[in-house]
Amino acid sequence: MPATDSIKREKLFIHGQWKEGSDYTELVSPYSGEVISEIPSASTEDVEEAINAADSVKPIMRNLSSFERAEILEELVTLLKSNKERAAHIIALEAAKPISTAKGEVERTIQTYKFAAEEAKQNHGEMISLDATPGGKNRIGYTKYEPIGVIGAITPFNFPMNLVAHKIGPAIAAGNAIVLKPASQTPLSSFFLAELLEKAGLPSGALNVVTGKGRVVGNAIVEDERVNMVTFTGSPEVGKSIRNKAELKRVTLELGSNAALIIDEDTDIDSIVSRCVSGAFSFQGQVCISLQRVYVHENLYEEFVQKFVKETEKLQLGDPLSESTDISALISPEDVTRSLEWIEEATKNGASIASGGQSDGNMLQPTVLLNVEPSMKVSCQEVFAPIVLIDKISSIDEGIEKVNDSKYGLQAGIYTESISSALDAADQLEVGGVIVNDFPTFRVDNMPYGGVKDSGTGKEGVKYSYEEMSEMKLVVINQD
Amino acid sequence: MPATDSIKREKLFIHGQWKEGSDYTELVSPYSGEVISEIPSASTEDVEEAINAADSVKPIMRNLSSFERAEILEELVTLLKSNKERAAHIIALEAAKPISTAKGEVERTIQTYKFAAEEAKQNHGEMISLDATPGGKNRIGYTKYEPIGVIGAITPFNFPMNLVAHKIGPAIAAGNAIVLKPASQTPLSSFFLAELLEKAGLPSGALNVVTGKGRVVGNAIVEDERVNMVTFTGSPEVGKSIRNKAELKRVTLELGSNAALIIDEDTDIDSIVSRCVSGAFSFQGQVCISLQRVYVHENLYEEFVQKFVKETEKLQLGDPLSESTDISALISPEDVTRSLEWIEEATKNGASIASGGQSDGNMLQPTVLLNVEPSMKVSCQEVFAPIVLIDKISSIDEGIEKVNDSKYGLQAGIYTESISSALDAADQLEVGGVIVNDFPTFRVDNMPYGGVKDSGTGKEGVKYSYEEMSEMKLVVINQD
Amino acid sequence: MPATDSIKREKLFIHGQWKEGSDYTELVSPYSGEVISEIPSASTEDVEEAINAADSVKPIMRNLSSFERAEILEELVTLLKSNKERAAHIIALEAAKPISTAKGEVERTIQTYKFAAEEAKQNHGEMISLDATPGGKNRIGYTKYEPIGVIGAITPFNFPMNLVAHKIGPAIAAGNAIVLKPASQTPLSSFFLAELLEKAGLPSGALNVVTGKGRVVGNAIVEDERVNMVTFTGSPEVGKSIRNKAELKRVTLELGSNAALIIDEDTDIDSIVSRCVSGAFSFQGQVCISLQRVYVHENLYEEFVQKFVKETEKLQLGDPLSESTDISALISPEDVTRSLEWIEEATKNGASIASGGQSDGNMLQPTVLLNVEPSMKVSCQEVFAPIVLIDKISSIDEGIEKVNDSKYGLQAGIYTESISSALDAADQLEVGGVIVNDFPTFRVDNMPYGGVKDSGTGKEGVKYSYEEMSEMKLVVINQD
Amino acid sequence: MPATDSIKREKLFIHGQWKEGSDYTELVSPYSGEVISEIPSASTEDVEEAINAADSVKPIMRNLSSFERAEILEELVTLLKSNKERAAHIIALEAAKPISTAKGEVERTIQTYKFAAEEAKQNHGEMISLDATPGGKNRIGYTKYEPIGVIGAITPFNFPMNLVAHKIGPAIAAGNAIVLKPASQTPLSSFFLAELLEKAGLPSGALNVVTGKGRVVGNAIVEDERVNMVTFTGSPEVGKSIRNKAELKRVTLELGSNAALIIDEDTDIDSIVSRCVSGAFSFQGQVCISLQRVYVHENLYEEFVQKFVKETEKLQLGDPLSESTDISALISPEDVTRSLEWIEEATKNGASIASGGQSDGNMLQPTVLLNVEPSMKVSCQEVFAPIVLIDKISSIDEGIEKVNDSKYGLQAGIYTESISSALDAADQLEVGGVIVNDFPTFRVDNMPYGGVKDSGTGKEGVKYSYEEMSEMKLVVINQD
Repeated sequence: MPATDSIKREKLFIHGQWKEGSDYTELVSPYSGEVISEIPSASTEDVEEAINAADSVKPIMRNLSSFERAEILEELVTLLKSNKERAAHIIALEAAKPISTAKGEVERTIQTYKFAAEEAKQNHGEMISLDATPGGKNRIGYTKYEPIGVIGAITPFNFPMNLVAHKIGPAIAAGNAIVLKPASQTPLSSFFLAELLEKAGLPSGALNVVTGKGRVVGNAIVEDERVNMVTFTGSPEVGKSIRNKAELKRVTLELGSNAALIIDEDTDIDSIVSRCVSGAFSFQGQVCISLQRVYVHENLYEEFVQKFVKETEKLQLGDPLSESTDISALISPEDVTRSLEWIEEATKNGASIASGGQSDGNMLQPTVLLNVEPSMKVSCQEVFAPIVLIDKISSIDEGIEKVNDSKYGLQAGIYTESISSALDAADQLEVGGVIVNDFPTFRVDNMPYGGVKDSGTGKEGVKYSYEEMSEMKLVVINQD
Repeated sequence: MPATDSIKREKLFIHGQWKEGSDYTELVSPYSGEVISEIPSASTEDVEEAINAADSVKPIMRNLSSFERAEILEELVTLLKSNKERAAHIIALEAAKPISTAKGEVERTIQTYKFAAEEAKQNHGEMISLDATPGGKNRIGYTKYEPIGVIGAITPFNFPMNLVAHKIGPAIAAGNAIVLKPASQTPLSSFFLAELLEKAGLPSGALNVVTGKGRVVGNAIVEDERVNMVTFTGSPEVGKSIRNKAELKRVTLELGSNAALIIDEDTDIDSIVSRCVSGAFSFQGQVCISLQRVYVHENLYEEFVQKFVKETEKLQLGDPLSESTDISALISPEDVTRSLEWIEEATKNGASIASGGQSDGNMLQPTVLLNVEPSMKVSCQEVFAPIVLIDKISSIDEGIEKVNDSKYGLQAGIYTESISSALDAADQLEVGGVIVNDFPTFRVDNMPYGGVKDSGTGKEGVKYSYEEMSEMKLVVINQD
Repeated sequence: MPATDSIKREKLFIHGQWKEGSDYTELVSPYSGEVISEIPSASTEDVEEAINAADSVKPIMRNLSSFERAEILEELVTLLKSNKERAAHIIALEAAKPISTAKGEVERTIQTYKFAAEEAKQNHGEMISLDATPGGKNRIGYTKYEPIGVIGAITPFNFPMNLVAHKIGPAIAAGNAIVLKPASQTPLSSFFLAELLEKAGLPSGALNVVTGKGRVVGNAIVEDERVNMVTFTGSPEVGKSIRNKAELKRVTLELGSNAALIIDEDTDIDSIVSRCVSGAFSFQGQVCISLQRVYVHENLYEEFVQKFVKETEKLQLGDPLSESTDISALISPEDVTRSLEWIEEATKNGASIASGGQSDGNMLQPTVLLNVEPSMKVSCQEVFAPIVLIDKISSIDEGIEKVNDSKYGLQAGIYTESISSALDAADQLEVGGVIVNDFPTFRVDNMPYGGVKDSGTGKEGVKYSYEEMSEMKLVVINQD
Repeated sequence: MPATDSIKREKLFIHGQWKEGSDYTELVSPYSGEVISEIPSASTEDVEEAINAADSVKPIMRNLSSFERAEILEELVTLLKSNKERAAHIIALEAAKPISTAKGEVERTIQTYKFAAEEAKQNHGEMISLDATPGGKNRIGYTKYEPIGVIGAITPFNFPMNLVAHKIGPAIAAGNAIVLKPASQTPLSSFFLAELLEKAGLPSGALNVVTGKGRVVGNAIVEDERVNMVTFTGSPEVGKSIRNKAELKRVTLELGSNAALIIDEDTDIDSIVSRCVSGAFSFQGQVCISLQRVYVHENLYEEFVQKFVKETEKLQLGDPLSESTDISALISPEDVTRSLEWIEEATKNGASIASGGQSDGNMLQPTVLLNVEPSMKVSCQEVFAPIVLIDKISSIDEGIEKVNDSKYGLQAGIYTESISSALDAADQLEVGGVIVNDFPTFRVDNMPYGGVKDSGTGKEGVKYSYEEMSEMKLVVINQD
């Protein structure tokens, strides 16, 4: 289908230049199905050129003082603040994220770059007590953090701005150059970022945006020797294949999850139910730490299910650009089909639907399932759709066991008034983060974030990414 | 009065030499009243000589590597481990501390010196991001911790070994020389320490022990210009007077306390009552963080009082050298008199005695008071005797208010199963340390320890003392 | 003396209100002698009211999240950036600081508040390994930093904006309320700050500005029990008297200095001479770490003196409001007189004048002295005027000895290409900061800053002040 | 060849039991060729059993307090101290390490375990400022370090005791269980360690020693899902293959190196030459950071070569068990052959031999090569034999360029008196550690250690290994 006059053709961003692609793909609204724009599919030569650019700008990035890096990021923050509306609109448009949720993402994106600006100025080095050893008297030792060099960043569609920020922000703070491949569905947010960073004074070549197919662009990034690190957020399968190809290259992987919540019998349901609904259905459940499994103490089970369903049914489906929309389209028609199949697998085998369960065009109704078995896909796989299961437990220990019975381990939540239950859960839950008295979906942008088991390897959160994106070098000075 | 043949005359320890005093005082057992030994009263010339010694050994101490400092302290630990019995006997004898309690003190003393050995090898310096400023590009900055120099240590009788260790251990770890004035009643523990440290290879002059009167010895230490820091544990009055004389000298003060405990209504009394009794009466209540005030939720008040009294009445009074003794003599007959007067003041004004209240020679029965007003001395002053008051509260907030209604603020405890009560208490209690689900008497030797208000200034706990006993120096290297 | 119409009457700033004083003093330009404005002299009642205000706002300040504190400080930074010209003009006017130097101070003030905004968001607490002890198993321990409460800040004239920022910035970051007494000669900068902070959203009462006499206002602050900390920058005499009156109150003192520089024989004089001249004469030498003593290797002595004098003689004296002025009036006529007397004392006893030595109205010519003895006032006292002495040394060791032969110890510099000389100097110089290959006047606003000996006690630099302005509280949670 | 009666048959150590193997290999002295003992070749079933054991003991290890872990390690230190002679003898025997060098390794092994004991007691967690974000008010956040679980350790022959210690020490400190596969040539040191740790009270199953072929034992470890981390020291080829098979498993790799040293023109050759010779030839050059390439300023080149050769020729070749031996056999005859081939490749293409170059049985003479090209194997490969090349440079920059022209980057050294040269080198050398004024072979056991490029990924050094061997978990407590 040829591009009409009104459809904008986007360009690759390489070495500070906006460059036409040799091939284009249409970007379609997940909600309306309309063509939004045409996106260049980078060739391996384009990726090569982007890596060249990043490689060549390494010395310039490395020589920026931490003050200068911070200034670029602070300027980006200022630009974002004055472009909030446009930013949210882009997200809503390309990702079908309800505009009010998209605005929240923009606010968090601002926070992420702000933390990156500040982290740039923190000294991550430390003094080493060489003279604590018989052989180290009269020696000064310290560590310094140097840029790792060129970072390949491969980002997902679900937070097209803030999950990019969690890679680009720390990468710049630590003095690296970046080749960014955004998700195919959400390239516009990345082009927008490139535009702002250009204005903010980032040296040419320090950020390159190459859109296109994972098999072409992603592979070219992962396999290039000059790329020193790959940071990827996405599926476990792709994550593992990246690591298997990466040889000694550093790799950070933020992969899947089926986040769970335990609710103890002393909990006041009224005060938590809307928070839980929001954790389950925000952005159609397409959030890494979306609430997928709820384990409620049996004494509260009936009450919780009833109130949760009631709250769920208040949610409004519709156009992501409308302020009143709570739930919009899934990212692709295939995901709608898959979701319905998983629901069907569950119901055929004994699960019941307490709410939702149907699609409406590309939208899936927010769906509450009961009597789900752990082996069903809606429980053991990452559902990434507005589907939540509610199950009953007779004790916290049982809840912990059920949460842990998963190949994933990103975050888990527990509501309880009991110190000992809370701390036991904090000890025993096999996850990267335990959230006491809030949903497992809790994330602020300076906290360490990253899972165990198949949920990934490495931590994000600005400070932690900064350190993963740096080489720690030891310097010893013999004073004798 | 001439020394009899059987009474040992102790000597001052100055510049690595054991030196006779010009004047002596008899050291008398608080329990039996028998003369234990004769203690030299250092003259101002003796103190001058000790300070000379410390001052002259400064360069030697400073040049010890941290490994070498650690080795001395590790050797001290080894010596203490093989002299545990003797150490405990000394404490029991001079302080009338029941031998089983004294053994506990020896174990903690070992821990304290062990932590000091380990702390010596930690690097307390840090790298500074000078290039986070417009004017600091291409500069390396770091801090190093240097010995402060000569430390005057004035220590109390109640932990004659471990509270000395909290000053000597970090002082050596940080590379300082010390002039130690132990409490008049407990000099033997300090002489014993000097003996061990001499064997452990501490350079001559690095520890000097000068016994005698506070007005002579203490003043001479505080007023000497070459003493760079005074670390004192004792009464608020003396503490304040030290600080007023100290000019720019660094001063750490660990002063009084009337430690309190809040017991929430969800507490299982049976599981805590013996811990509470121990907190109140251990070493006759002569512990800085001895439990003096108990605020019990009204629903549990009767039960708690009854069980607490029952447990209290199991305590055995007697000879500190007997393994079965729980309670022995107070440190001086004056303290017995004072305690009885304070009890009388309380009872005359409406308080009642639930247990104890009488003396037996130099021993005071463990005493439980009820209906005590906040203004009574047994509540608002530091009682430093086996006296505890139990009061009722109708809420945690009331408990917090009562704990805070004190000029002291060292530590406080709260028993509760509620997360929010625990964290509220942690926020609102005006103390140096909040202990959740344990008594306020909790202390381990690596934790920061020190109070607010009239309880003092500065922190102990090995790492914290190490830093207070050091000068942090900045080094900037311009690389341009 | 009644105020004329054209002279502005300033007001006290108490509890968010601008309040008239009961008495006024004229503020006179140090350069022109003209009356600039009328300044209220706070009465003890005014100070009492200011402390009341600060005391009452404590709970509000304490409850601000660190994000909220940072937002106020970031807003202040924004306001300062858009008021740079006015800010610099105020400084130049009241302090006779040459306008170009005043602009530099404004830039640094912005940095200081920026660092304070960022420091507010750093977590200063730490986890404690209670289970590293036999008695601490199954316990969680951590420290939290709480506001100390009310801070009395007494500030000097020489950096009327940035040295105020070093007290107000960290105080707000740490959640405190402040009573500020600025120097009598430079109140306008503090009123200006109050105005901006009011706009920035600081809660009423959190900053109070009380101008007036040290004996009245300063004393009232130091002696009030509700003031939890006094932070003072000024003379050693006043500093010591504050500490003697402070009892257990926390006190930070930044006092005098006679900063020195060592120049090794391998130094390229041409590349350093203008930096040295700037270190000696910037703001007429009225800088705490102004370069007062230069110790040059004898092989370079003649060359250095000649080039230093030549560079000095390029400096232009004049109106502080003129862009071309390098040197303007001293802060008071008394300081001119004192400076001339000290020069005279030196020359009478053998010193020679290589440049300057005369006054011109309230201005003193930048003065270079040779053959100065260590005992002369221009060497051993803090000169705080544009006077520098140059002396020769035959080795770095001799240089170190001469630098250390001082009752002060704030910062010292050394120019050398030799690693071992640099590190020896870093070890042996008895100062708070050793600056290698730059002048001792080097300061950026995030570095630890503060001296030893009579130069004071406690550290400034945003992070360090933050910690001194906080109470560290231990929280222990028993998990058994 | 059947085992004679006098040859000891070793046993596998699995789950606290000494277990016979189903198959055995003879262990032969590299020096004498005599059979030392028979070593069991673990089957895949044996490895499976060992992993079972480790897996089953995880909860026990995890529940040890840090004090208890430290006690086990301290006890190990005590046992090692009283078995120094035996330990050194084992190393000398199986590795042909000269006994005096072996004794040095034992001393360092003691240090490593000592640091591990101490590191166990450090708290690696940190407090997180959640309230620095708009969404995180009233939340407490902290991180805790939990054991990663089961660690597979694959160790090399060159430090059969200390490089094992660098894996076992931190693994125990962090609470992990271990399956250890020592190098085929040096199993005895690991059996000895197992014996001591059993005595020291390590829980059964926490350390398992499985000897045998890399292809069998190594693979079984790397591919087992229950092994959570593999830590490997050895060749780049094996290292990369491990990582490619590891999927999401954590992997630390310490691989090859061709360590280099730069000598600036201001260096005093006499004071460094014996240190350089030791760095090049210690343990026959079979040290990861053995000095392989020396780049001397041309002005000193002749002098350095002459003195280096002279010092080299003092080295005594012989029996590793003799106290006077400096150089003994290479680890295998194949390594002798390979070394000679590499020398020949060099000399055929223009290099010259300044000393050595011949073999003597299994010993290779310490060999000094001149005029070596960067592309020759003795320069660009890891030589791991007593071969060093000396080359001339005309500037530090040239030296840095030559050092960096390598696929390896572990450590590099520079001798210089110039601050700027030293700091430039510290910035520009592409290595994990820059050693100023000492050889690149410098290592003490608490410093971070690990390379860039093909030298590996991850850091050792006790603290750093501890952190790599732990999962950092976030705990958030909502206090609202």
